[in-house]
Amino acid sequence: MSDLTAYLKAKQQEINAALERFWDGTEPFPTPLIQAMRYSLEAGGKRLRPVLCLAASEAVGGSDADVMPAACALELIHTYSLIHDDLPAMDDDDLRRGKPTCHKAFDEATAILAGDGLLTAAFEVLASAGRARRSDPLKWLEVSYLIARAAGCTGMVQGQMMDLSVEGKAITLEELETLQQLKTGALIEISVKTGALLGGGNPQEVAALTAYGRHIGLAFQLADDILNVEGKPEIIGKPVGSDQAHQKITGPSLIGLEQAKARARELVDSALEELEVFDMRGQPLAALARYIIERKK
Amino acid sequence: MSDLTAYLKAKQQEINAALERFWDGTEPFPTPLIQAMRYSLEAGGKRLRPVLCLAASEAVGGSDADVMPAACALELIHTYSLIHDDLPAMDDDDLRRGKPTCHKAFDEATAILAGDGLLTAAFEVLASAGRARRSDPLKWLEVSYLIARAAGCTGMVQGQMMDLSVEGKAITLEELETLQQLKTGALIEISVKTGALLGGGNPQEVAALTAYGRHIGLAFQLADDILNVEGKPEIIGKPVGSDQAHQKITGPSLIGLEQAKARARELVDSALEELEVFDMRGQPLAALARYIIERKK
Repeated sequence: MSDLTAYLKAKQQEINAALERFWDGTEPFPTPLIQAMRYSLEAGGKRLRPVLCLAASEAVGGSDADVMPAACALELIHTYSLIHDDLPAMDDDDLRRGKPTCHKAFDEATAILAGDGLLTAAFEVLASAGRARRSDPLKWLEVSYLIARAAGCTGMVQGQMMDLSVEGKAITLEELETLQQLKTGALIEISVKTGALLGGGNPQEVAALTAYGRHIGLAFQLADDILNVEGKPEIIGKPVGSDQAHQKITGPSLIGLEQAKARARELVDSALEELEVFDMRGQPLAALARYIIERKK
Repeated sequence: MSDLTAYLKAKQQEINAALERFWDGTEPFPTPLIQAMRYSLEAGGKRLRPVLCLAASEAVGGSDADVMPAACALELIHTYSLIHDDLPAMDDDDLRRGKPTCHKAFDEATAILAGDGLLTAAFEVLASAGRARRSDPLKWLEVSYLIARAAGCTGMVQGQMMDLSVEGKAITLEELETLQQLKTGALIEISVKTGALLGGGNPQEVAALTAYGRHIGLAFQLADDILNVEGKPEIIGKPVGSDQAHQKITGPSLIGLEQAKARARELVDSALEELEVFDMRGQPLAALARYIIERKK
């Protein structure tokens, strides 16, 4: 795809407009809670998960409208996880995307509740879409179930717990990839799978896109850890070298920077192979896979 | 109803058995996270919300099986909210039901994640029930939507935020009831409504039971605040008088203990009126309404 930047920008605008509509339903409550939720949701994220969801739908011939509520739900969940991960009791981060983290801009109690509110909002959006689109309520239930499994104690939340538990311990590359698959991979994989399912993909298409999602999910975390070593702080919006300072075990720390880069490229190549059956319609997903390891932030 | 104790015990056993089954799906993950989630879920709660859900279903002629996943989801949400409310950044409580709170028994990070895991689990259970009971997926979507609205930033989470914001401020009885309706009432009301909807109630029955739920929700919070003044710490499992020590505004502090008791009785009477159309099948709900203001813990 020649112009991923334009594609990303168009999709991000669509997603932001759809996310914006969620606040209509919270109008009677103009409190710090809603402000904190919006602050973090509108802090300039790349919207990678919803974009992947839309692009996967496109690959199987679905429309953006078919899947937009799920795309929004995925971003709501991603944002909640960042707020909670940044808390003092967790990773204790002061900056996120170059801005004060939610508990710094507001306070800890507000940040905990803003995360809770965003997580709950995700399932509100999914259920609301399902009951409005009466044509296929079972698909929305299926997708809600899969997203909950990927986000909760069998997915992302479990991954964050493991990440905290292994601090300072020796682990193998296999254990690290299990942890990262849960912490970051599961939600990225389900973003792609959700798009494929709601976009109307057949079982083979859904399986291929799910495999694509799994590969890029792992590649994404590797790329993040590589940026933490050699990224530019003014571009990524947070300090560089923090993993090393915290003696955090990452791909680069375990197998070295060059090996980690090779592994990320290998994962992206595996992801691209899964797209072969989709012809032109898979091009945005191919460009996104490459972007994941080439991005500077 | 002559023997509420036996009724409660039977329902609690059924609910606990159903909750127990959730852990089968988390088997590959025997980590501190799952332990912390179970620790709080199995800390001896009264299961009031799921019991109300089952009793409402019974009142409209539904079976326990029809609504059990929703009953479980409500208890998962209630438990998560207790864990997060007890955190040092929130109410900073060390004891809950006579046992160390989750962040005391484990640590703060684990408690935050255990809450996140339980909240996500609630929506997993709802979606899972909906996709398995293919007869009426739309009802499960409707219920998921209503529960999310009652639990999130337009319900319970908003109520907790308001509760923290008004600390030390002068508020009116009306403002206090709005806050308490969100913080405690919304989830109790939706527990009853969910049972009525999934149990197959007609619109008039659902409306009557929703009104019943709203009245007992407010009565429940008043009764809690009254117990905080004159309850026995060895029975309620936490210190008494903490509201007064924290200069927390409650029904008793605002209108006096006797007036608060009269208001609670008035609310329960209004709730009982709503049950008149249900004859014998409404008896458990009537007994539960009385229990809410007569309980000692």
